[in-house]
Amino acid sequence: MASIKYTYLFNQGNRSMVNLLGGKGANLAYMANKGLPVPEGFTITTQACNEYYENDCKISEELQRQIDESLETIEELTQKTFGGLENPLLVSVRSGAPVSMPGMMDTVLNLGLNDETVKVLAQKTNNERFALDSYRRFIQIFSDVVLEIPRDIFEDKLDEIKANYGFVQDNELNVESLKEIIAGYKEIVKDVIHEDFYQDVRVQLKMAIEAVFKSWQNKRAIIYRDLHNISHSIGTAVNIQSMVFGNFSDTSGTGVLFTRNPVTGDNELFGEYLINAQGEDVVAGIRTPMPLNKLSEEMPEVYQELFEIVKKMEISYKDVQDVEFTIENGKLYFLQTRSAKRTAMAALKIAIDMFNEGTIDKITALTRVQPEQVEQLLHPSFDNNVIKDLQPISKGLPASPGAANGRIYLDAQTVAEKAGEGEETILVRHETTPEDIEGMIHCKAVLTSTGGMTSHAAVVARGMGRICIVGCQNIELDYKKRQVKIGDRIYNEGDWISVDGSTGNVYDGKIETETNVVPDQFKTLMTWADEYALMEVRANVDNAVDAQKALDFGAMGIGLCRTEHMFFGEERIYDMQRMILADDEATRIKALDKLYPYQKEDFKAIYHVMKELPVTIRLLDPPLHEFLPHTPEDVKKLAAKLNISEQTIIERSKSLEEVNPMLGHRGCRLAITYPEIYEMQARAIVSAAIEVNNELGINIVPQIKIPLVVTGSELERLRKMIVIEVDKEIESLNAKLDYNIGIMVETPRACLVADELAEHSDFFSFGTNDLTQMTYGFSRDDFSKFSNEYLSKKILPCDPFAQLDDQGVGKLIKMAVDQGRAVKPNLKIGICGEHGGETNSVLLCYKYGLDYVSCSPYRISLAKLVIAQATAFKLLSVNNY
Amino acid sequence: MASIKYTYLFNQGNRSMVNLLGGKGANLAYMANKGLPVPEGFTITTQACNEYYENDCKISEELQRQIDESLETIEELTQKTFGGLENPLLVSVRSGAPVSMPGMMDTVLNLGLNDETVKVLAQKTNNERFALDSYRRFIQIFSDVVLEIPRDIFEDKLDEIKANYGFVQDNELNVESLKEIIAGYKEIVKDVIHEDFYQDVRVQLKMAIEAVFKSWQNKRAIIYRDLHNISHSIGTAVNIQSMVFGNFSDTSGTGVLFTRNPVTGDNELFGEYLINAQGEDVVAGIRTPMPLNKLSEEMPEVYQELFEIVKKMEISYKDVQDVEFTIENGKLYFLQTRSAKRTAMAALKIAIDMFNEGTIDKITALTRVQPEQVEQLLHPSFDNNVIKDLQPISKGLPASPGAANGRIYLDAQTVAEKAGEGEETILVRHETTPEDIEGMIHCKAVLTSTGGMTSHAAVVARGMGRICIVGCQNIELDYKKRQVKIGDRIYNEGDWISVDGSTGNVYDGKIETETNVVPDQFKTLMTWADEYALMEVRANVDNAVDAQKALDFGAMGIGLCRTEHMFFGEERIYDMQRMILADDEATRIKALDKLYPYQKEDFKAIYHVMKELPVTIRLLDPPLHEFLPHTPEDVKKLAAKLNISEQTIIERSKSLEEVNPMLGHRGCRLAITYPEIYEMQARAIVSAAIEVNNELGINIVPQIKIPLVVTGSELERLRKMIVIEVDKEIESLNAKLDYNIGIMVETPRACLVADELAEHSDFFSFGTNDLTQMTYGFSRDDFSKFSNEYLSKKILPCDPFAQLDDQGVGKLIKMAVDQGRAVKPNLKIGICGEHGGETNSVLLCYKYGLDYVSCSPYRISLAKLVIAQATAFKLLSVNNY
Repeated sequence: MASIKYTYLFNQGNRSMVNLLGGKGANLAYMANKGLPVPEGFTITTQACNEYYENDCKISEELQRQIDESLETIEELTQKTFGGLENPLLVSVRSGAPVSMPGMMDTVLNLGLNDETVKVLAQKTNNERFALDSYRRFIQIFSDVVLEIPRDIFEDKLDEIKANYGFVQDNELNVESLKEIIAGYKEIVKDVIHEDFYQDVRVQLKMAIEAVFKSWQNKRAIIYRDLHNISHSIGTAVNIQSMVFGNFSDTSGTGVLFTRNPVTGDNELFGEYLINAQGEDVVAGIRTPMPLNKLSEEMPEVYQELFEIVKKMEISYKDVQDVEFTIENGKLYFLQTRSAKRTAMAALKIAIDMFNEGTIDKITALTRVQPEQVEQLLHPSFDNNVIKDLQPISKGLPASPGAANGRIYLDAQTVAEKAGEGEETILVRHETTPEDIEGMIHCKAVLTSTGGMTSHAAVVARGMGRICIVGCQNIELDYKKRQVKIGDRIYNEGDWISVDGSTGNVYDGKIETETNVVPDQFKTLMTWADEYALMEVRANVDNAVDAQKALDFGAMGIGLCRTEHMFFGEERIYDMQRMILADDEATRIKALDKLYPYQKEDFKAIYHVMKELPVTIRLLDPPLHEFLPHTPEDVKKLAAKLNISEQTIIERSKSLEEVNPMLGHRGCRLAITYPEIYEMQARAIVSAAIEVNNELGINIVPQIKIPLVVTGSELERLRKMIVIEVDKEIESLNAKLDYNIGIMVETPRACLVADELAEHSDFFSFGTNDLTQMTYGFSRDDFSKFSNEYLSKKILPCDPFAQLDDQGVGKLIKMAVDQGRAVKPNLKIGICGEHGGETNSVLLCYKYGLDYVSCSPYRISLAKLVIAQATAFKLLSVNNY
Repeated sequence: MASIKYTYLFNQGNRSMVNLLGGKGANLAYMANKGLPVPEGFTITTQACNEYYENDCKISEELQRQIDESLETIEELTQKTFGGLENPLLVSVRSGAPVSMPGMMDTVLNLGLNDETVKVLAQKTNNERFALDSYRRFIQIFSDVVLEIPRDIFEDKLDEIKANYGFVQDNELNVESLKEIIAGYKEIVKDVIHEDFYQDVRVQLKMAIEAVFKSWQNKRAIIYRDLHNISHSIGTAVNIQSMVFGNFSDTSGTGVLFTRNPVTGDNELFGEYLINAQGEDVVAGIRTPMPLNKLSEEMPEVYQELFEIVKKMEISYKDVQDVEFTIENGKLYFLQTRSAKRTAMAALKIAIDMFNEGTIDKITALTRVQPEQVEQLLHPSFDNNVIKDLQPISKGLPASPGAANGRIYLDAQTVAEKAGEGEETILVRHETTPEDIEGMIHCKAVLTSTGGMTSHAAVVARGMGRICIVGCQNIELDYKKRQVKIGDRIYNEGDWISVDGSTGNVYDGKIETETNVVPDQFKTLMTWADEYALMEVRANVDNAVDAQKALDFGAMGIGLCRTEHMFFGEERIYDMQRMILADDEATRIKALDKLYPYQKEDFKAIYHVMKELPVTIRLLDPPLHEFLPHTPEDVKKLAAKLNISEQTIIERSKSLEEVNPMLGHRGCRLAITYPEIYEMQARAIVSAAIEVNNELGINIVPQIKIPLVVTGSELERLRKMIVIEVDKEIESLNAKLDYNIGIMVETPRACLVADELAEHSDFFSFGTNDLTQMTYGFSRDDFSKFSNEYLSKKILPCDPFAQLDDQGVGKLIKMAVDQGRAVKPNLKIGICGEHGGETNSVLLCYKYGLDYVSCSPYRISLAKLVIAQATAFKLLSVNNY
């Protein structure tokens, strides 16, 4: 009876045998079959692992026989002997499951060393120190991963002996001290296992193989599989590979290389190497490696071989490779190859180049730029070499990316003034409110001591592409003294700081920034992305300037145009305040009549930019008290301006005050109480559209969006009210106009009764910021006070305001989509919350079947790329690797 | 071919023919068949109505033939002729669908009157004024419901003529003016229909029948059916009944009676009558009716007949009847009988009496007391005769029922002092906070100017049975001047007001209250309720005194024991504040160690009352800033007491301040940051239980409840922490103890991931207050500012904080129940939000399949009755009527 095959020499397997040989084994087989010089070795199958468990965790005789047989073949191929004293074969032992998985056993290198073979190695390499160091590392790692002796016992011993010799760095260890360490290590092992460290190399190997098998069932691995729904019965393979040595001779060496430049993306070999050295030497930093092109002079044939092979590997793997190689006595070996990490710029260039070279198709090229890297391309940054050694003076949440330096100022007005004088400014506040808009427009960056990823500062800054860091907890502001205390240091207004909105780091002083120029390749990539986009990307913008920016970035419409910021201009804020302070409807309507032309002009300007693309305008949303002054000085000023008593303003403010404004009198609740506000806005939207239609001879269809709806009857009433007002306006202008009225779906209840709401809605637009707040009961303004606890303790996998919560909020969204479409199969559904510009959230929206995402202009490219990649991965899912 | 029968004389039908004859028709048939003297008449079937629609809204020849035939029979039976001038037959025409339904046509009385028959009527009744008044009413009502001429045109005409005559009341109209009015009415009709008012009585009848048929499809009726899922194809029946006249002679008369006293419930006829009069005369108040027993003297035979029949009717209908009767020339007729409205006390007595008499069974008796009436039995009230003419000075939300009078005081401390001096006090505040507990305990009633049905004042007052009105918008407080402005009037501290927490009315001055003594029958009813209760009722109480009260009311455990109020005692609040102000864990733990004995003693006291009944203790929930002082004086006091700087307290308060405290750092989030708080509480709960177990030799199983959970990993972590602490405590006390750890399900997310949470929960307890807040995005503290708009405009059918929202919040609850039970089929699930004591909400909980509701002690009886009735109605659903 033919026995089952449990071991495969590398050249016996192939790339498709992932289930049997694991990912690493299949990959090694692939390289071996391609004729690449991979050190000899073999893989023990996952089936062997599974049978090991069935066999009460014993290695069967048949498996042992096949291991011995394979090892013998390796000995023959390498002309070395395992445990032999002539030319000892050393091996590495690694796990390799079909699915990459943390928690599995680490690599054991140099297995086969013992008190005897170490001497031979010293002699062969002519480097006793290297041999001894390899041996002490082997004992340490074997004890850790196979014998499970706590790592720190060895670390303590090492530190102790280093201290005795007065050494600080590991590379100072000499032969004498290494011998002492090895002796010490062996003692530790003996204390634990009550026998000497294993000198029988076959015992070493057997134990290492069993340790790999066992690590399949260790707790971390089990939890990981549970979490990711990976079957526990897959098992892991074990890879046993002969070691090669770059320090055998002067015709030996070791190095790493990239098949293209990972910083610029240029098509040139890029790397470094050391003659007569092992990988460890490079890491230890004892000697300075040489640039790779030097190798073409020192060992031209080897270089040529290397060059030809790695270029073939690149084509074969269809991606830039990061390769580790070793030369042993003039013979080249490849120890590892993997896709190379690269900068945003390089990723972009390589993707386009490889498409142009015919190596990859367009879809694959699209997947080769990480969406998050897009931000690097669009925003200025600090030189990494400059900041890598700097200690940040504060760290907050990276609310809006990019790097900037500037002088600190504590209020919007001063920022606007100083910026007018040509200064670079950074606006520092506890938090921002709509009153700070002017300052946010003129500063280079915004820094707040409180607030989370969806606080006012974060949302608005992101919208205008302004750099922003929020929730810097170690910053204390003293508005009176005009000072900021960051950590222990006092900064006065006018002092310089530098901020990195991509990391949340704040630095002392002025650090220069580098501005990246958006390359043409980026535009090419975006064009490709559009070809594969199955979901629209719109923009969240409030004015014509940003609308133009959004168009430039390829927005297909405006998903959210907030109207509240429009009320904060110099004169109009007074009319707004007059409206709020009105005692009766007549006065209120008079004030609204004054606001009407402002609104109309704002809308007209936006329509002029967007033309016939959809512009979704959200009617007034924030509670009215946000528009009233908050300081005694401002109250005084307003009282004088409006010619009313300060007391009136204070009393009205007080009567509008709320315990929980987020859950208060805002959104469409305002229009239930004061219908005239929405009526004015509806008229302005419609007449603006009609005028622009007439001016440009186009056909704008306004999209009117009602916020914070909770019941069908509320919506029915408001829709009726708006329809009456709008139709009256259209008639009075003797015009024709189609328009849509839809809703923000942003309360849990709106999701729960979405069928009822769909009856009266032309579209749904998820406001996931508010929806997240209410679903969790997390106030976005207060969450930063305890979010650290939740994130650092992994109670939350991520900030739900930054990344959409699939399990909770997502369930509500899905429910609303299903119910809404059940009533209106073609209901247009999108998302306009901050999540619309975050990779994972965009993917979730795609999964939920939304028609579009809407995000701030600077995130449009990212969103487009995410969507295109989602489509691409779907198309590539039956891949040909 | 036998034709279909479209008309049924009353004695041809029976009670089971509801679908064919409608509810009213079947009921008339029932009375006729029981031999009751009902005026002759017949019913046109629902089938006729449906065929009318199929027949393009035409009355078929066959139907017309049957109507004529039936009418002829009625003429024979009554010896009257329809349209005749000898003895004219007048009829009433009414709709009567199988399902009672608003929007259907009203009654047309006196149909058959025209210019001729009115004269005969005047002559026969010897009362021209009555005849003319009947005719003018007939024209008016016929024009309204049949001809659809707007009612106010007639009202205007009536007012005009009354004004001409200088009349104010309708009963001042004399013959002359009535003739003028009739002429005027006929003119109005002619203006609209362009012909004279219909003199042909058969035309009148046909039109009235068609009007009934048509009203089945009027808009209001259609909407009602849509809303209640009633089929549109049922159709309505039409009842045509001969009119009888109590004003024919001095042996005629009219009256109303109750078969038992509706105020006291005593088994005696109760009613009044008028000789030679029609119902209208009683209503118009021209003459004073006589008490019913007078009839036994005036017309002893009629009285005897009346007495015997109505007692039979009572037994037949198995309930006290409210009967309208007419005597026409010594002959008794019943025009209507229906179940009598009655006071709480009467309802109770009648239910028990009728059971004892054998008329009804226990289940039916249980359904005869309205759950809402229970409150009337338990709380003091104002004499209705006293307050009915009083104008309230303010009206708020009726947060906790009962009536009280007392002197106004504006803070808790003064209330406590004055109450100590023996004064009756009413605590008036903007809103209450936990700091006001002392005052709430000592006052007779609490009045707040803000807040909703689940504000702090409302919840706490209800819990302690304290009378409370919240959200009185016309009340302004001036704490400095120690004054309250109610409407336009200023009240100083010490002034008297009276409040009715059952209606929300506030009255000037001191109105005496009546204390109802809870009758023994109430206890009987509650015992019966327990027999049929398929759901447990627990209490929300925080201390031993209230726990005893809850037990007395029949609570089967404590569903919610809040722990925060326990920290507000004189000394302990300082330790609590010390804990909050602590800079480090060590100081915090020291302060907590001081709080520990207080907590333990509180828990012990409760356990001593409740013994082995479940006591569910919620760990600390409110944000810490609630415990810090809010006024400069209190800050000063605390600083002195704790020997720290005021600045420290102010800074800490400021750092704890939140924009939206409801969505802030509270609930179990506190325990993620400061685990030591929950650890202390868990220890106190457990050691209290062990000590009481030892003292009483019983076996308490503590129920520990974690508030505001949002994710599985949060709960897993906290549960583990508590289990460790609890087990350590049990071990250190060398004891044995079972305990359960469960959660408040009060965020939408908790409902959405209930399966995940059930893994780590022994029970679920819905906190529907918070759940409602977050589902709607309504802050309970701010909702009252706009709730009026929503309720008065019917945008919300009711206050969702008072009555559970089935459509939205209910959907989340159902989802959580289903998911939770899918993981743990026997998961104990209850509700401890305020809804647990509201009739409709309790019914919903029953529908959702919860195991228990928990409410404030005074609402336990109500909840029990609701549950028993739900069970009873289920048992009675195949009823035998």
